[in-house]
Amino acid sequence: MRLSRGQMQAFEQQGFLVLPGLFTPREVEVLRAALAPLFAEESPANVREKLSGEVRTAMGLHLRSPAYAKLVRHPRLLAPAFQLLGDGLYAQQVKVNVKAAFEGEAWQWHYDFATHHHEDGVPEPLALNLHVFLDEVNEFNGPLYFVPGSQRHGPAPCELDSVSTSYPLWVVERATVAHLVAAHGIVSATGAAGTALIFGDCLVHASPPNLSPWNRRIFSLIANPIANRQTRFARPDYKHHRDFTPLTVLADDCLVAAAAA
Amino acid sequence: MRLSRGQMQAFEQQGFLVLPGLFTPREVEVLRAALAPLFAEESPANVREKLSGEVRTAMGLHLRSPAYAKLVRHPRLLAPAFQLLGDGLYAQQVKVNVKAAFEGEAWQWHYDFATHHHEDGVPEPLALNLHVFLDEVNEFNGPLYFVPGSQRHGPAPCELDSVSTSYPLWVVERATVAHLVAAHGIVSATGAAGTALIFGDCLVHASPPNLSPWNRRIFSLIANPIANRQTRFARPDYKHHRDFTPLTVLADDCLVAAAAA
Repeated sequence: MRLSRGQMQAFEQQGFLVLPGLFTPREVEVLRAALAPLFAEESPANVREKLSGEVRTAMGLHLRSPAYAKLVRHPRLLAPAFQLLGDGLYAQQVKVNVKAAFEGEAWQWHYDFATHHHEDGVPEPLALNLHVFLDEVNEFNGPLYFVPGSQRHGPAPCELDSVSTSYPLWVVERATVAHLVAAHGIVSATGAAGTALIFGDCLVHASPPNLSPWNRRIFSLIANPIANRQTRFARPDYKHHRDFTPLTVLADDCLVAAAAA
Repeated sequence: MRLSRGQMQAFEQQGFLVLPGLFTPREVEVLRAALAPLFAEESPANVREKLSGEVRTAMGLHLRSPAYAKLVRHPRLLAPAFQLLGDGLYAQQVKVNVKAAFEGEAWQWHYDFATHHHEDGVPEPLALNLHVFLDEVNEFNGPLYFVPGSQRHGPAPCELDSVSTSYPLWVVERATVAHLVAAHGIVSATGAAGTALIFGDCLVHASPPNLSPWNRRIFSLIANPIANRQTRFARPDYKHHRDFTPLTVLADDCLVAAAAA
């Protein structure tokens, strides 16, 4: 797994990359099978929807599940991150974002660095968000909407929103969103289960609720250079991990070898 | 304006038809220009969003605006309805559904006949919903989602929802939506301003909120055979008009001739 020069340039320009079929159906099945017991846990690391009580985000998963402990060290997921950032990275946040069929709510326009910077004192917008689709993500079940190229404007003005949804979020002001969208438009990131998606810390994104009867579960590892680690420690470990050991890779078949063992 | 045999068959199978470019940019401009004063009126026929107070639906427009009085008698809009239903039709409901940029909320899964039948005693699911896009409708600004072919199953089981949104609505039960979507999938109806859209009274549809900075305004005329008219009169006239005079057509240039006059 190595990004081509074209992919590196596209990431620079657009702020994200979609990598279809990065994980096999069998690997996805291993990751899916691990979720039900994790979601059933009564844990503050399981953030639930305001209305339905369904799990919206299950966090700290590499510390709660052998399969996800392997995924955060998977060579196909980490190689692009090492290529873009170098290899001194720690696992800043590890989660599965769920949009349950009929229930999953919207995320307002935001970019990840706003929260990492304001809440955790991360100095620079260097972190990468590495996603793996655990379900097909399509137009109807709550895909991520990106403003491609918005990261090139640097960190956008934002404000803390603790009203709209079940998770307090630093959101981008509407006038700024309108300005960026007028320049760059909006694209949605869709694909089959097993697709990976990489995007940077300043890319402005949102996602609509899931009105469809199809679940939409996406794994997310935020990998941040150790040299750029958090400087404030107000949030719990599951929201920003304090283990700054560099991520290293396991074997390419680690997910399925584990399942067979 | 006459539907082809292929279009008639597609309507029969899918339950809807998209007619791109049915109205010109100049005609759309006339219709748009009429909206601001209508939306500013303090009227129960202007239904507003729960949260923002923005107009969500402005009803009874053919009685409130010369431009919309012409649109409900426009030959390009009525010809397909006459072809599908015969020419003894009345204007049952006339409105502009708005999804304001950043504000417009979702509509849950429903079909129009459920409300016309339960609230107004319309005997049979014959009415047609004739839409004209007043803005571009795209994936991001709250398009209609259809379950194509769902109308062939007849009226689906439903229940009254007066909680989710700003307008009480007879919605389709989730198990039924899941069953229909498993058989038929979901499609979204998108197109440039001036596009028309025709769909029937049993077609199951929903629409997501508008997270984008783009307004999404759609004109809607529900045309119902006079022989199938309402038998209960509990709702106000602007929700179901009581004038059963047959709709007749004006000249093809009526919208722009009016603007010039």
